[in-house]
Amino acid sequence: MLRDAVVDLDDAGRIVHCGPFHSAPEHPGPIRELTGILLPGLVNAHAHSPMTVLRGMGGDLPLMRWLTEVIWPAEGRLTPSDVYDGMVLGSVEMLRAGVTTSAEMYFHADEVARAVLDTGARAVLAPAVMDVPGWDWRKMLAGVNAWIDADGLRSGPGERIEVGYGPHSAYTLPPAALTEVAAEARARGALVQIHVAESLPEDVKQREEFGSVPALLEQAGVYGGRVLAAHSVHLSDTDIALFAANSVSVAHCPGSNMKLASGIARLRDLRAAGVATGIGTDGPASNDDLDLWEDVRLAGMLARVATLDSTVVKAADLLLLATRGGADALHRTDIGALEAGRWADVVHVGVDDPAFAAGLDVPDEQVLSTLVWAAGSRSVTDVWVAGAPVVTEGEPVLVDRRAAQERAGKVTGRLLSA
Amino acid sequence: MLRDAVVDLDDAGRIVHCGPFHSAPEHPGPIRELTGILLPGLVNAHAHSPMTVLRGMGGDLPLMRWLTEVIWPAEGRLTPSDVYDGMVLGSVEMLRAGVTTSAEMYFHADEVARAVLDTGARAVLAPAVMDVPGWDWRKMLAGVNAWIDADGLRSGPGERIEVGYGPHSAYTLPPAALTEVAAEARARGALVQIHVAESLPEDVKQREEFGSVPALLEQAGVYGGRVLAAHSVHLSDTDIALFAANSVSVAHCPGSNMKLASGIARLRDLRAAGVATGIGTDGPASNDDLDLWEDVRLAGMLARVATLDSTVVKAADLLLLATRGGADALHRTDIGALEAGRWADVVHVGVDDPAFAAGLDVPDEQVLSTLVWAAGSRSVTDVWVAGAPVVTEGEPVLVDRRAAQERAGKVTGRLLSA
Repeated sequence: MLRDAVVDLDDAGRIVHCGPFHSAPEHPGPIRELTGILLPGLVNAHAHSPMTVLRGMGGDLPLMRWLTEVIWPAEGRLTPSDVYDGMVLGSVEMLRAGVTTSAEMYFHADEVARAVLDTGARAVLAPAVMDVPGWDWRKMLAGVNAWIDADGLRSGPGERIEVGYGPHSAYTLPPAALTEVAAEARARGALVQIHVAESLPEDVKQREEFGSVPALLEQAGVYGGRVLAAHSVHLSDTDIALFAANSVSVAHCPGSNMKLASGIARLRDLRAAGVATGIGTDGPASNDDLDLWEDVRLAGMLARVATLDSTVVKAADLLLLATRGGADALHRTDIGALEAGRWADVVHVGVDDPAFAAGLDVPDEQVLSTLVWAAGSRSVTDVWVAGAPVVTEGEPVLVDRRAAQERAGKVTGRLLSA
Repeated sequence: MLRDAVVDLDDAGRIVHCGPFHSAPEHPGPIRELTGILLPGLVNAHAHSPMTVLRGMGGDLPLMRWLTEVIWPAEGRLTPSDVYDGMVLGSVEMLRAGVTTSAEMYFHADEVARAVLDTGARAVLAPAVMDVPGWDWRKMLAGVNAWIDADGLRSGPGERIEVGYGPHSAYTLPPAALTEVAAEARARGALVQIHVAESLPEDVKQREEFGSVPALLEQAGVYGGRVLAAHSVHLSDTDIALFAANSVSVAHCPGSNMKLASGIARLRDLRAAGVATGIGTDGPASNDDLDLWEDVRLAGMLARVATLDSTVVKAADLLLLATRGGADALHRTDIGALEAGRWADVVHVGVDDPAFAAGLDVPDEQVLSTLVWAAGSRSVTDVWVAGAPVVTEGEPVLVDRRAAQERAGKVTGRLLSA
């Protein structure tokens, strides 16, 4: 968090210098002067953002009925263009909240990439790989291999697209498939995103056979590369130690875990064990929006009430989880902080909100507390990704927000009338 | 929740008719036509709103150090005018979020009332009564008695001010004082607001002697009138049955209870027992804003994860908790619903948000789900209290928001520099 700061970039959009204005080296003069706070762009460590088109559908059904009766049938009717429209709206929502990077596990990932490039956002894609009826996991895997081999791991202006692997979970893929996916990812230095121990009713067979999902993943040889375990709610001490020893990172999704009654992840213990941890919204069909700030607050509140210790995470810790923590969770060192060498993914927070009535001339701790606990997304005014403006005065620069809403709304209407 | 609706009022600001436009009786034509959703004004069932001037101060300290080293010393320096400035800002925050009524427990309650009248809001005041050094509970009690005897229980245009009693808690007042306060309240038909079983470290002596705080209150003869038990986190089955049998209502404060690590109130069991339950934000020094929608979502999320049952509260249930439930918690039948005979406290929710991309031509369940889980306070555009406009297009009508922020900010600055 910086006040009265200057950020200098190179032509590609990387930070050359960042710090207090008075200590800045000579530079060509500010592009835009703003009063307020500068933050690194937030990182949404686990999302299925195209599901904006499914928001609110069947929201009061129990989880399995919701999935089998509403969501999966609707997803079966999504065209590539629907996924594009859903992702454009998802990117718009995230950028307006200051979330510049998201980890996206979804199908039609080429359409997800196209939407991300069009809105100016940054994403780490995890095209889904699943062994369920109607899907061929070998074909899905071959598709990702071919994509990375053709375009490279990162591509686009500002390297805004990274392609990784999205083996869905240990209950939708046999261990041999997990082994193969992880080997292909390691060979390319790519990220593996996988759902782990989200809720108790899942993984029952896997836990009976292997003791736990983290143990299964170890035996399948999944570890050793860049692995991000989403949710990771039901972990034993041994599981946490296994993650720490193998540099497996976690995307903590408190909003989704609470609303879907999945359980309470052990944030305090993950942090104490040194597991790199970011925060994720999960999909907007379940959570129900992509406002990461809400999940940041939930992460803090849930950790505090679960441990009955109000000092277990401070405001500064929470902001770090959503920025540097998210970058660490994606095994990335080029985003998540305002530091020379990293991409200039920058968020400006204005102070025209009752929460900031006392202004910024108060202790750092109080600014951070107000920012995290009270102000959040509604105070984000301007956002840059790789130095390029993508949100100005609250509205997206590269796409028309209302047109994006209209297109996504039409998809929802068509799904509802089917 | 109403779409394409009309609300007709009498001259005093009470609803005469409310319902779909096509079924409306003859009326003089709309004062204002809006596209979107009409809701009853939300009810914040437990707040200390003047504490906006203390927001963020010492926010990372453990609870007792925060209270004794930061909050209480700062409160000791608050002048009546500071409390007025804090409450104006608090009212502005609440009104912009569509919260038209709040239950306010604070000192200098006459200044709280003045601020509420000036912003156009509605409140049920509970001037604090405490037996702690520097305070004389008999004098505080006599003050409330005199106030009600002079002005009546409800006063002001639209009866927007109700005066009740705020005996702070069983650990700051001896049982004999509780008995006397409750008797005075019953004699005047006034509401008693009291903190009950908020956290485990408090009430230890009381629980040892009486078994529980609800049992203590029964033995002290507190029940029988209108009693609102704030927080009520640590209740046994017997306590809940006692509340139900005595029509004691509860203000559930999930955000405060989580952030302060107080514990998880038993929302499911309170509802099953028929205890009237509303939602409260608690004070903005701890929670840290007065956005009741966030607490509405938290109430749902916390109840779901605590019971591992995602069907335990639906979106419609949550909206009812924040409206009719809040009115019930205050033992009021004249607010909390859009019904003939109640005050026209009305909120308009616009649909220009990505969350409402699909518009309103979708099933009721989906509109409610989007409203509660995704849209919330940021979509509130217009608010009326007793039929009078108090927020138009997101900004307060009767006070200047930025001036209110500046005044409250100056108070905070003075407290910090002391």
